[in-house]
Amino acid sequence: MSETGIKADWIAVDWGTSNLRCYAMSRSGTVLAQASSPKGMGQLAREDFEPALLELIGPWLAGPTDVIACGMVGSRQGWVEAPYSTAPCPVLPDQVVMPPCDDPRLKVRVISGVQQIKPNHDVMRGEETQIAGFLSLNKDWDGVVCLPGTHTKWVHISANEIISFRTFMTGEMFNLLSQNSVLKHSVGGAGWDDLAFAEGLELAMSRPETLAANLFSIRAADLLTDQTPHQARAKLSGLLIGAELAASKPYWLGQNVCVLGADGLSKIYTDALQAQAVPVTQTDGTRMTLAGLTAAHAHVKETV
Amino acid sequence: MSETGIKADWIAVDWGTSNLRCYAMSRSGTVLAQASSPKGMGQLAREDFEPALLELIGPWLAGPTDVIACGMVGSRQGWVEAPYSTAPCPVLPDQVVMPPCDDPRLKVRVISGVQQIKPNHDVMRGEETQIAGFLSLNKDWDGVVCLPGTHTKWVHISANEIISFRTFMTGEMFNLLSQNSVLKHSVGGAGWDDLAFAEGLELAMSRPETLAANLFSIRAADLLTDQTPHQARAKLSGLLIGAELAASKPYWLGQNVCVLGADGLSKIYTDALQAQAVPVTQTDGTRMTLAGLTAAHAHVKETV
Repeated sequence: MSETGIKADWIAVDWGTSNLRCYAMSRSGTVLAQASSPKGMGQLAREDFEPALLELIGPWLAGPTDVIACGMVGSRQGWVEAPYSTAPCPVLPDQVVMPPCDDPRLKVRVISGVQQIKPNHDVMRGEETQIAGFLSLNKDWDGVVCLPGTHTKWVHISANEIISFRTFMTGEMFNLLSQNSVLKHSVGGAGWDDLAFAEGLELAMSRPETLAANLFSIRAADLLTDQTPHQARAKLSGLLIGAELAASKPYWLGQNVCVLGADGLSKIYTDALQAQAVPVTQTDGTRMTLAGLTAAHAHVKETV
Repeated sequence: MSETGIKADWIAVDWGTSNLRCYAMSRSGTVLAQASSPKGMGQLAREDFEPALLELIGPWLAGPTDVIACGMVGSRQGWVEAPYSTAPCPVLPDQVVMPPCDDPRLKVRVISGVQQIKPNHDVMRGEETQIAGFLSLNKDWDGVVCLPGTHTKWVHISANEIISFRTFMTGEMFNLLSQNSVLKHSVGGAGWDDLAFAEGLELAMSRPETLAANLFSIRAADLLTDQTPHQARAKLSGLLIGAELAASKPYWLGQNVCVLGADGLSKIYTDALQAQAVPVTQTDGTRMTLAGLTAAHAHVKETV
C-alpha cells in the first residue's frame, strides 16, 4: 500500500486495538503518503510490533526518522507501556516512551494515555492526541469534547488541560445487542429511520430508568407489529445514545461542546445535542489525530 | 437417557430454544422418569421435532399417549405455531394446538404463549405455564411473579389472569458484557463478592441514569486498582439487576412478589427485593413447570 519514492521527514502513527495507520509527513506538516494494515495491538506479541511497522513505513525511510505513535500501542499489552498521566493534567504529556528497535533508522516515541482516579476510575489512550490536535487548531478553547465510538469519551477541557472525563460503552453495546443478542433477529442492515431514532432518544432521555425494559420491546414490536429492521436499528441506537446523554448530562449541560470523530456517528450525536439546545461544533477524527501527532512531534522536539 | 420398562400415563414436555426436557408422568401426577437433550427449538427444522421427541419418549409409549408441551416449540419457528393469547387473559388458554404427527401413538398438544399490545408490546412462551403451576398450588394468589433468566419477566397476576407483563434482557446483557465485551478481560470465573454486588445494585437503583457510564468503570477499576475478577463480576451483576429493579419498580413496589426460577439467580433477586422491604416468596422453576403442565393436562381433558 506504501508508495515508493516518497521519503518522510517524520512519520505519524495511529496504532489502535484493531488497526495500524501510518502517515508519511513533510517538514511543513502535509501528508505525503499513507498506509494501513489490520495489525492492531490486539493481535500482536511484543516482538511483532517493529516488523508490522516496518512493513508499512519501510519504503519511506531515508535515514534516521522520528516516528510518533498514539493509541493502544502504549498499553500494557502493547509494544511498550507508556505510563498514564493522571487527570487533571496537560493534554499532551511532557514525557514520551521509546520502545527498543532493532532497525537503527527508527526513532519511535509513544504518547502516554491519561488515567483518572477521582471522581471515578477511567482511562484513555489515543483520544488525548485527538484533543491535542483540536486544541492546536483552536487555541485556548474551553469546553467539552465528545468522542463517539466503540467507547465514547466525554472530556472536560479548560486552559489546555484535561479536567475530567468519562467513558461510555455505547458503541460496543450497540454492536453486541444488534449482532449477538435476540435483537439480531429484529435489527437489520444499515438502514435508518429518523423518527424511530428520535422516539428511542426521547424515551431514554426522559425516563432513563426504563432502558432495561425498552430493549426487549424492540423484539416484541417486531413479532407483533410491522416494525421494519431499519426502524428497529434506529430505535436501538436512539435508546442507547439517549441513555448515554442522560448519564453524561453533567458534561454537556450549559457547555460548549465539540463532537470529534467519524462523520456518520458524529452527526447523530451533534443532532441529538443540538435538539437539547447545546451549542455544538463537529470536527473530523482522522484530521484531529494527525494534527495531534503533529503537535506532539513539535512538542517532543522542544522538550527532548 | 430414558429408562426402559416405564410406561407413561401422559408426558410433560418443556421445549425451549436451547433444550428439550421430557417427563414420564403417572396418573396421579408423579414423575416416573425424565430425559433431556440439547435439541431445542433453535436448531430444529419443522420435520425434526417429532424425531427429536420420539428419541426421548419412545421407550415410555405403551399406546396412544397425551403429550403436553410448553415453550418456544409453539413459536412461529417452532413445530407448530400456537397463536398467542392477548393479555389481560387467563393464565392457561382454552385452546391448544396439535402438530401433525406420523406416529399414531402421539397426541401432542402445544400450549399458547401470551402477547401484550398495550401499554407496551411484549411476548412470553413457557412462563405462562410456570405461573399456572404456581397458581395451581397457591389458589387465588394475587400479586407479581418475577421469573429471572436470560429474559427476565415481571408478571402482574390477579384473579387467575395475567393482567400485564414486561420483559428485561438482563441475563442476556450480563452474558454478552461478561463474555463478549471489553469487560471480559476484567470479569472472571464464577466467583462472587456480596459487597461489590450491593454497591452496583445501590448505584444503579439510586441513579439509574448513570448505567451507561458505570459499566466501563468496571474495566478502568481493573486497570487502575486491585479489583478482583469476582468483584468485577458481582459489580456488573449488581448494576444490571439494579437497572432492572429501577425499571420494574411499578411492578414490585407495594406488591406481594413471588420469584420463580432456578435457585442461585432467584436468591439474588429475592435478597435484593427483600432489601427494599418487599414481601417475597421464592419457588423452584422446574417444579412449577411440571405443576403447570399437569394443570394444563387436566384443563385439556376437561375442555377437549
